[in-house]
Order: sequence, then C-alpha cells, then structure tokens
Amino acid sequence: MASATSEPHQPDAEGDLNGAPAPAKTIKFTSETYPEIKRNSKFAKLSQEHMQYFQELLGSGSAVLDGLSKDASEDIEPYNSDWMRKYRGHAKLVLKPGSTEEVSKILKYCNDNMLAVVPQGGNTGLVGGSVPVFDEIVINLQRMDKIRSFDEVSGILVADAGVILEVADNFLAEKKHIFPLDLGAKGSCQIGGNVATNAGGLRLLRYGSLHGNVLGIEAVLPDGTVVDDLLTLRKNNTGYDLKHLFIGGEGTIGIITGISILCPQRSAAVNVAYFGLESYEHAQKAFRAAKNQLSEILSAFEMMDGRTQKLLRTGAGKKLPLEGDHPFYCLIETSGSNTDHDSEKLQNFLEHVMEAEIVSDGVLAQDQTQIADLWSCREGVPEILGHWGGVYKYDLSLPIADLYDIVNDVRDRLTNAGLVGDDDSHPCIDVVGYGHMGDANLHLNIPVRRYDKEVEKQLEPFVYEWVQKKSGSISAEHGLGIAKKPYIGYSRSDTMIKLMRQIKDLYDPKGIMNPYKYI
Amino acid sequence: MASATSEPHQPDAEGDLNGAPAPAKTIKFTSETYPEIKRNSKFAKLSQEHMQYFQELLGSGSAVLDGLSKDASEDIEPYNSDWMRKYRGHAKLVLKPGSTEEVSKILKYCNDNMLAVVPQGGNTGLVGGSVPVFDEIVINLQRMDKIRSFDEVSGILVADAGVILEVADNFLAEKKHIFPLDLGAKGSCQIGGNVATNAGGLRLLRYGSLHGNVLGIEAVLPDGTVVDDLLTLRKNNTGYDLKHLFIGGEGTIGIITGISILCPQRSAAVNVAYFGLESYEHAQKAFRAAKNQLSEILSAFEMMDGRTQKLLRTGAGKKLPLEGDHPFYCLIETSGSNTDHDSEKLQNFLEHVMEAEIVSDGVLAQDQTQIADLWSCREGVPEILGHWGGVYKYDLSLPIADLYDIVNDVRDRLTNAGLVGDDDSHPCIDVVGYGHMGDANLHLNIPVRRYDKEVEKQLEPFVYEWVQKKSGSISAEHGLGIAKKPYIGYSRSDTMIKLMRQIKDLYDPKGIMNPYKYI
Repeated sequence: MASATSEPHQPDAEGDLNGAPAPAKTIKFTSETYPEIKRNSKFAKLSQEHMQYFQELLGSGSAVLDGLSKDASEDIEPYNSDWMRKYRGHAKLVLKPGSTEEVSKILKYCNDNMLAVVPQGGNTGLVGGSVPVFDEIVINLQRMDKIRSFDEVSGILVADAGVILEVADNFLAEKKHIFPLDLGAKGSCQIGGNVATNAGGLRLLRYGSLHGNVLGIEAVLPDGTVVDDLLTLRKNNTGYDLKHLFIGGEGTIGIITGISILCPQRSAAVNVAYFGLESYEHAQKAFRAAKNQLSEILSAFEMMDGRTQKLLRTGAGKKLPLEGDHPFYCLIETSGSNTDHDSEKLQNFLEHVMEAEIVSDGVLAQDQTQIADLWSCREGVPEILGHWGGVYKYDLSLPIADLYDIVNDVRDRLTNAGLVGDDDSHPCIDVVGYGHMGDANLHLNIPVRRYDKEVEKQLEPFVYEWVQKKSGSISAEHGLGIAKKPYIGYSRSDTMIKLMRQIKDLYDPKGIMNPYKYI
Repeated sequence: MASATSEPHQPDAEGDLNGAPAPAKTIKFTSETYPEIKRNSKFAKLSQEHMQYFQELLGSGSAVLDGLSKDASEDIEPYNSDWMRKYRGHAKLVLKPGSTEEVSKILKYCNDNMLAVVPQGGNTGLVGGSVPVFDEIVINLQRMDKIRSFDEVSGILVADAGVILEVADNFLAEKKHIFPLDLGAKGSCQIGGNVATNAGGLRLLRYGSLHGNVLGIEAVLPDGTVVDDLLTLRKNNTGYDLKHLFIGGEGTIGIITGISILCPQRSAAVNVAYFGLESYEHAQKAFRAAKNQLSEILSAFEMMDGRTQKLLRTGAGKKLPLEGDHPFYCLIETSGSNTDHDSEKLQNFLEHVMEAEIVSDGVLAQDQTQIADLWSCREGVPEILGHWGGVYKYDLSLPIADLYDIVNDVRDRLTNAGLVGDDDSHPCIDVVGYGHMGDANLHLNIPVRRYDKEVEKQLEPFVYEWVQKKSGSISAEHGLGIAKKPYIGYSRSDTMIKLMRQIKDLYDPKGIMNPYKYI
C-alpha cells in the first residue's frame, strides 16, 4: 500500500525535505499498524545484566539511553520513531558507540545473547528502515562524527559513518570539492546511512551512484568481525568487491562505521533553464538534445507535467516563469568550470530546441534569485500536492520511453472509476507525474482530498504490476525498509530474492540485524 | 614474482596491445612453470560419455572442439594458451555455447559430474585467468555475440557477454555514444570478460569504474541457476546488489552471459597536451590544476618520468615534442562537446601552469597527427622498455602523493646492489615509472638486459611490502588470475580474504569454477 498522508504541506521524499517539524503528536506503533508482523520470540528481552554490560562498555551516560528508567523515557522517543511519524518502535535502549571497536563489542554481545538491533544514522529514511518495530536495540552512529582524512589531489575523503552529509559537504566546499551526493535531508542524514541505503538524490545524473563513488568501507558484522575494506584506491582488482553488499544493504548484514569516497571538484559555474513542451515525446527529445549539446556540464534534468505546474499556480498561487499552459515542463541545470562557456552552451542549446520546435517556450535564469525561482517550480511540487489533504506517492524507476505512460494509465483508471474530479464528491484531485528524468526516476503522485479505500483498490496491485511488466523498480531510491518489503517480488525474481536471502543468512545467521525488514 | 619477458617489443598490459602476433613457438605448460600446483583429484576426467552429452547439447561441430581426436588437436591450442605465451593448459575440450540456456545446461552438467571449467572471453588477460591449468573445460563465450538492445535516450546498452569491445563501441559510435571503457585489447577482448575482470583502462578517470556503469548482469551459477539481474535502471534500491560480486569475480563464481551498461554521449572535441615538469611534486600540482580548470572535460592525465622519454629517444630514436630533458612529463587529454570552449580552457590552463611555473614547457596538439604523436610518447613507452631484452613489470595502485616514491626507492635499492648501469655487466638498464596518474595507477617497470635471480631477490618481496605499507594494491587493474593469487595478502587482510572465500564457497561449493586461481 502506498502511504496516504493526511498532513498538508508534507515534506517530500525526493530531496525536498523542507517542511518544518510538525507539532508533537502520538505516533501509532508500527506493531499496531502492521498487526501481522509478530515479534520473533527467538530474540532475548533486555535484562539488567545486558544493560550493565553496555553501561560498562560505553562508559558515560550519554552513550546509553535507558528507557527502562522512567526519567529517560521521553528521551528515547526520537530514536523510536521516524520523521514522517509513520513508524514507531518499542525500543528501551539506544547505544551510541564512539568507535568501531565499540560497535564491534556491542554487536558481538548482541549476537551472542540473541539481542536484535537496528542500526540508525540520521533517521531520515522514508521506508521505516532505521527505527525498531519491537524492542530491538537502536545503535545510533551520531557519536562517530570525525572526518578522518582528505586528499586534495585525488579528492578522496575518509570519514566516520556518523558524519552529517552537510558537514561533509561544507568541509569539502572549503577544499573546492563536493560530496557526490545531494539530498534534501542533508542537514540531518549521515553519510553512513546514505551509503547503507544507497541514496540517489539530485547529483546522480552527473556523478553516478554510490557504487561508483564509494571506494572503501569499514563495517562490523553481527559477530563483531570488522570488515576492514577502507581503501582509498580508484583501482584495485584483488578479489571480490564485498563493499557493494553493504551499499544499499540497509543495515541488515552489518553496520557501516566508516567510508572512503571519491569527491569531484566543485563547479564554479551553475546555470538553470526551464522549458514548456508539447508532449512527453518532446521532453525525451529535449533530454537527448541536452545530453548531446550540454553533455559534460549537464547536472540535472528534471521533468514536471503541466498538471503539477498548474497545481502550483492554483494551489500555491505561484507565478510561473512561462506564460500559458504547457503539457510538460523540464528544468535543466548545468555545472561547469567556466561561466562564459556554460552560458554559451546553454544559450546554443536553447536556440536549437526552440528552432527545432522541441520546446515551446523557455527561460534561462540570470542570477541566483532566478535560479532559486526556477528550482522552486520543481521543488515546490511535492509540498503543494499535499495541500488538499493527502497524497499517494510512488517512487519508480522505469524505462525512460515508458516513464510517463503509467501516469496516464493510472489517471485513466481512476477517472473511469469516477474517483477524479473538481468537486468534493471525488477523492482524487488529479494524477500527476514528475521526477529525475535524467535518471528515469518517476514520482507518480495522486493528490487526494481524503484517504479512500476505493482509490487504493484501484492503485494496487495495478501500479506494481505495471512496473513489473516494464521490468522497472518499485523503489528507485528509497529502499525497502518495512514499507516496501512485501513488494520486492514485483521488481526481483524469485531466484534473485533467494540469492539475496543466502547473503543475509551468510552474514547474519542469527538474524539479529534489523529484523522484520528488507528482503 | 614479476613477469620477466625475454621478447623485445613485448606489447604492454595497460591499454597498449599493439604488437603483431608473435611467431608460433612452444609455450611452456603452466603445470611445469608452477610445479607446486597440483591437479585436484576431486575433478573427474573427461570421458566419452561427457563428450557425447556436450555434442548432443550444442549440436553442430563448431560448438565443440574435440581435443581427444588427433585431427582437432591443433585447433585447441589458442584456447589453451594466452596471448603473452606465458600460460598454457592441457584442456581437451572447448565448448562454445550460443545461449544462456546452453551455458546453464553445461554448467549444471559439469557441476553434477565434477568437471572443472574455465570461462573464457577474448583471452586477452594478463594474469593467466582465462586459460586452463590442467584439463579444465574451456567455456568460450565468442558465439554469444549479439547486441540485444540500445536505448538512445538513456544510453543504456544490453548485449551478450561475447560481444567484442570494439564491436560494441563501433555500434555505439553510430549512435553518438561510447562504451565507458577503452583498452588496447579492444579488438579482441569481450565485454563479458571486461566485466568479469573489472577492466580499468584509459577512460576510468572520466567515466568511472564498471561498478558504477554496469547496470545489470545475467550470469549462470555453477549449479545452472540463471542470475537474471539484467535490469536497465539507473536507480533500483530493491535488495542486495549482487551483480558486483561478478564484476571482478574473474569467472570464479559464475559465468556472465549478458550485461547492461550505461554509455555516455560521445565527445565531439578531443584535445591533447604534453608537458615537461621539474619534479613529481610539480606533476601533482599540474594534476590539481587540471582537475580545477579542465574539470568536466578532463579525460586522461598520464604521467611518464623523464627516463621513459629518454629511453624513447635513445632506444627508439623518437623525436620528442619538447626540447631538452625534463625529470617528468604529463599528457593531458580533454573530451568535450564544444571544440572552441575546450581549446580555450586548455589554452588558459596551459598559460596558468606556465606562468605559475608548475610546468617547465608544454605543447598543445593542433591536429589529429599531432594528437597521435603526443599519445605515442605515452603509448610507445611499454614497447621500448622491452627493447634491451626484457622487463620486470608491476601494476600498482598507491596513494597519489606516494606514487613515484616507490620508483626512486626501487632504483636506489637496485643501484646500491650494483645491478643498474650503462654497460653489459649490469643486468638493469634503469628503473622507471609511468601510468594513469589520474587514477593513481603506477606502472613500475625495470627494463633489463637479461633475466637475473639477483634482481628478483632485490625486487620481491620488497615491492609488495612497500605497497602493503602504503595500503596500496598489488594489482590495480589486471586482477589476480594465477599470477597474483599468491600475493593477495599484501593488499587484503586475512579477514577480507576469509570473507571472500565464504563467497566462493557459497556460490561454487564444489569448486569447479576456474580452479587454482584468484583467492
């Protein structure tokens, strides 16, 4: 089931975490939302003896939050629940190790004593992967926050897993480099969590995935073994490259404690343009032209359908940069080392796509204010979609040629079922699509006036089956966690799932790592 | 031990496979060169029954080369020995499946009957990984040579493993794209083999490693299971990313039968410059300046020490592009979408590094002929180093700051031992270094007049221990095969090796895949 959010102005999943924290309210326990998930009785319950071990190991009180004592019970809540307030666990203990050795000792003890654990970084995930379901011990990496080294010649950064992404990027900015990943949650998320969830974000089109950029990891296995694979080499062909199992492994086979990563040079020039187009076919042509003419300086190619832009105007009262209505819009960003060259390339590209009638209209930002204004036409979309009451969200990878077809098909389906309309008798406002077109990553969104079982019945399994037919992915960048775990079969074959379970059993034979989630 | 080659004009390992095939001569059997490696008696010997099964399965005679019959005995030799003529096996059977299903049936039968196999692509490897040691059955992928699909919008190519790299690249050239990997052996090597050995090559600095570019693989496990992970998605976070185990797995856990790969747009403009520099420190500064000013258009940064260039002049009579002798030289290539912009950037960069006295002298190629001439100062190096009789070669990854120190240390060591000199009484001509500086990949080479035990004693384990101290790699891009298998401990910890063996045992519990090699 997709998430139906009832909060207006819900911050979004895809690099747009810009909402203010919502007022405190009681969050439903995950164990109540998913009554079919039962606590596995093989896991031990936390005892005073366990507590004592951890207190002695970690020393200061700051390392152990004792939910067993009444005084501390409030403090543990931020570790038990996620920022979307969708998931909430019953953990009574949060451990904050300060070193890889401490992580190793914690995990070995938990493994020996059958204590289930949940690794936690910045807890900014979207699929409930970083909070407990029952009484799993939370192992939070926030105290491991040191940058270990940076080589200015090679651009290779080595850092603790608990370093906050924005801290890492600010550090790199001083060295004229950037972290090859950008996310809306960058002020809170940790780089270890980014790697553990193989975060995608805004720079993937240009800099590629973490599988390409992460050069080494240090991780701890459930039995306390330290995987010392923290190499800082771009080339190293000496055996199986095991680090990739931990990249996107969502903390189910070990805890990442450190990473080394290749960081590109920071671009001196950034330009942004925004176009209106006649059709999705035209958007594909524009993408092809951008790849061809902007080539090495293209750093983002975002697509928004006309419906999203119209909702921005009608719902948020935003003045759009272009006159009139266009069925599709694209936002292009370039990043390069020479302002004049980049502007000229973008101008040439604009002239070409206008003359060839690939785009109907377009505008090029002249300054930072205009850049921000154009970006807001993309970044404001997720926020406005929650404006009427709620929104069903799907984060899909699809072949680029078919990317928008699913939006039309879902809209037809809901319309034919009489569920979409302008007045209050229809639950759905519209069915819209936008996303990282350059990465073939579509956000299919259905803004609704209210939560409605009939809408859900029309959406699922229809959407997942549609994605499956096109060999797409039901989770492009958010991972599986607890939210997508039941649906992996729509994107992976039984053979692949079986092979994945082999890996899980190999590294975590007792199953203590982040149980009830992933595969 | 490093390879001591006695052939002059030995084509090189690192993207410079430009020598003509050598005249036929008897190649020593690997089993004789390495008498300590014994055939594992657990493997069955090939019987008439086995032969009959394969003949019935694959149908035509072209699919089975029967080394058991005298007539065909000559035909099997190219599959038994490598192009360097260093390794030679005793295989009596070569199978050339035409489909993934046939590969599956072959492997299942071999696994059920304890028949050892060696997967083979273009057989252009440098570490003896693609030829048998004893009587392993060669499974050659050459008949699986179809391009399955190409999406011109996303640039994603799906192809059989047996497609020759140059064929794939020529196909992509027509579509204005390139394969994100380039190698001297491209006319022979197969893309499946490239992926299986995680080939590095000339474009890594710009396009990154295959771990970043390969989006999916299809592979067959020893038990016949087809790993159907041939997705064409840039983003897909649905479980462990198992394909990475096969990338660089050197055919030890399965046979790759197909790949999908992200291919960049082909660059319209290519420029090449060549500099003389005072020191390695200056080369590092030049690299930093190139990253900074050339940034997104930088596609190669190669370093050659002055000794290599001097040997080119004295040994090959080459007229060097710059007057005088410089301790170091760099070659820079840019690839971009706009000729004027790129030329201007390179010109500005040149002026900067000249004015700041980072480089002592430099030249910018004005046409294709000059581009080729400048490249020959880099590409001619490996050839000339074999000119006097032989060459000891090491392919190392090291932290970029320490990259050249090992060359000085080894030269001092051999000089102090009285082994380097101008006259025939000294075995060594010189100790030189060059390589892909942008990837921190050094080729340490010792051109010699003759093979000499004393030189080897000075070189090993000195070189490997030196690399180990710097947390470098003893095999940057060539892999392990049989040649580097004994030395993996210098680059990987016991823990990592143990974890790698777990993977091997998991996927290939009977050990039939490419035995005697890798880890």
